Amino acid sequence: MVRVRPVCVVGLGLIGGSVLRAAARAGRDVFGASDVAVADPRVEETVAAALERAAREDALVVIAVPLPAVDEVLRLVATHAPSCLLTDVVSVKEPVAEAVARRLPDARYAGGHPMAGRSASGWDAGSADLFDGAAWVVATEEDTSPEAWREAVSLALDCGAQVVPTTMREHDAAVARISHLPHVLSAVLAATGAEGGSLALSLAAGSFTDGTRVMGTRPELVLAMCEGNRAALLDAVDEALGRLGAARGSLASTGGLAATIRAGHEGRQALEDLRTAGSEEIPIDLTDPEAFETLRDLGTAGGRVLRLDGDTAVGALPA
Amino acid sequence: MVRVRPVCVVGLGLIGGSVLRAAARAGRDVFGASDVAVADPRVEETVAAALERAAREDALVVIAVPLPAVDEVLRLVATHAPSCLLTDVVSVKEPVAEAVARRLPDARYAGGHPMAGRSASGWDAGSADLFDGAAWVVATEEDTSPEAWREAVSLALDCGAQVVPTTMREHDAAVARISHLPHVLSAVLAATGAEGGSLALSLAAGSFTDGTRVMGTRPELVLAMCEGNRAALLDAVDEALGRLGAARGSLASTGGLAATIRAGHEGRQALEDLRTAGSEEIPIDLTDPEAFETLRDLGTAGGRVLRLDGDTAVGALPA
Repeated sequence: MVRVRPVCVVGLGLIGGSVLRAAARAGRDVFGASDVAVADPRVEETVAAALERAAREDALVVIAVPLPAVDEVLRLVATHAPSCLLTDVVSVKEPVAEAVARRLPDARYAGGHPMAGRSASGWDAGSADLFDGAAWVVATEEDTSPEAWREAVSLALDCGAQVVPTTMREHDAAVARISHLPHVLSAVLAATGAEGGSLALSLAAGSFTDGTRVMGTRPELVLAMCEGNRAALLDAVDEALGRLGAARGSLASTGGLAATIRAGHEGRQALEDLRTAGSEEIPIDLTDPEAFETLRDLGTAGGRVLRLDGDTAVGALPA
Repeated sequence: MVRVRPVCVVGLGLIGGSVLRAAARAGRDVFGASDVAVADPRVEETVAAALERAAREDALVVIAVPLPAVDEVLRLVATHAPSCLLTDVVSVKEPVAEAVARRLPDARYAGGHPMAGRSASGWDAGSADLFDGAAWVVATEEDTSPEAWREAVSLALDCGAQVVPTTMREHDAAVARISHLPHVLSAVLAATGAEGGSLALSLAAGSFTDGTRVMGTRPELVLAMCEGNRAALLDAVDEALGRLGAARGSLASTGGLAATIRAGHEGRQALEDLRTAGSEEIPIDLTDPEAFETLRDLGTAGGRVLRLDGDTAVGALPA
């Protein structure tokens, strides 16, 4: 029987708390720790104690704190569990990888990012099913540690997610478009709507409610996420400014918004098409030297890894 | 016993079709007509036939077509039912009022706008409960016909909505902020996200899904709505451009987005505060010459009319 590696989750907010519960649901031996007190038998008293236990049990260490706290956690990992396999569930990947390279240059590390969330935050908001069917990026670079990669992928799959293999740079550019820009536009919308006073807010229906939902999240969390992806977010904001400026110009000059609205409709249609597409299973031999390249191509095409089967990763490609 | 006036709905898409069903649910005698064939015993073969019946039965005529089709419907009203009380459920108010003034200068007219919708459109998407608890604006100007006002308010209340009394100008400015701007920003977001290709769309989770939901609506409907409110929407887009540009500048110079995200969080909080506020009932005597002014103040404060009780409108003011 193959030993299943224990999991040590550091940071037990919405995401970390959900990873702990989801891994436990899958029968994984999991424990964790957090700066904030959490009353749960699986939670150690301090982060240091949890990491010492991780070192003893050769656990996979999962960093699940907001980006600004990552460096301090890495310092503790370097002290207490420097040899453990390492992943993270932070919303940007290049800045975390840079911090890992600084603090733990020899770490066997594969960064991750589950694409799931809700407006509520903290341990109490977490749930074992948060990741069911969700995309979970696992960084798949030429120099990614294969052992850490496989453990990060196993954890994601055990948590009910599907794995999207891609580079950290492509991840950061993509999430700037589909996660961080939505937060910035939501903030702009919420502020502009509220500027209309109680009358405007009283008239707000679905479009405003949906468009501002993520602004219910604690600002500190949104800031940590968006500011941590500064360079890629700047590109996405510039593109949005260009599109909004073009809409403004068209509305002012001809009164028309057709190009803007049609492009938006097509974009939404592309999302729905991808979500309703059939899929074709493809086996990827992980012992193949080109495996990571094949995996990245799968991610670029909107595909995902559904399961690991020995040395084979079974992918699903939209068909 | 007071005679309850029949209702004639012209245009049986999502909104008109829902008005017909909701009015019927309330026990109102209701019929309608549409350009598109609708198999329902309450539906007349042609708009002209429905309007002739409205004239015979002295019905309230409800215009429920997109703005570009309003003028043609008004031409038919002028021909077949020029004396009927008139309202509408079109998403902008000043342009409709201008068209009414051109086509039917003597009309007893009070414009309306229910703040409810969904991405699906057409008769089949409608339902009797679409307006339950929703805001329904009824234009309340000094020169609004009191008879038409009262009939429009009764219809809205019968449909399960709560009435927000305000001027057409204030309505148009408010909906530019909380309905039309959300559509424009949603279009910008959907297009920018899709530009990231299948990888980005594969990673899209709640923030992108919610933020682009309204782009599932047929572009023609969004265009009719947004382009019809051109002047007010331009102001709202300019404000959004200013806020997005400030976010861009701050992100580029200091890397910080705190002002943007905090303003967004406060705006969302204001929405939630208004929705969870208690309320104080206030009776407004409709025979008072200042009644319409009092009603507008109620609307400005985020209040709504809950019911009519003889000559009294019972309002609820957020407390």
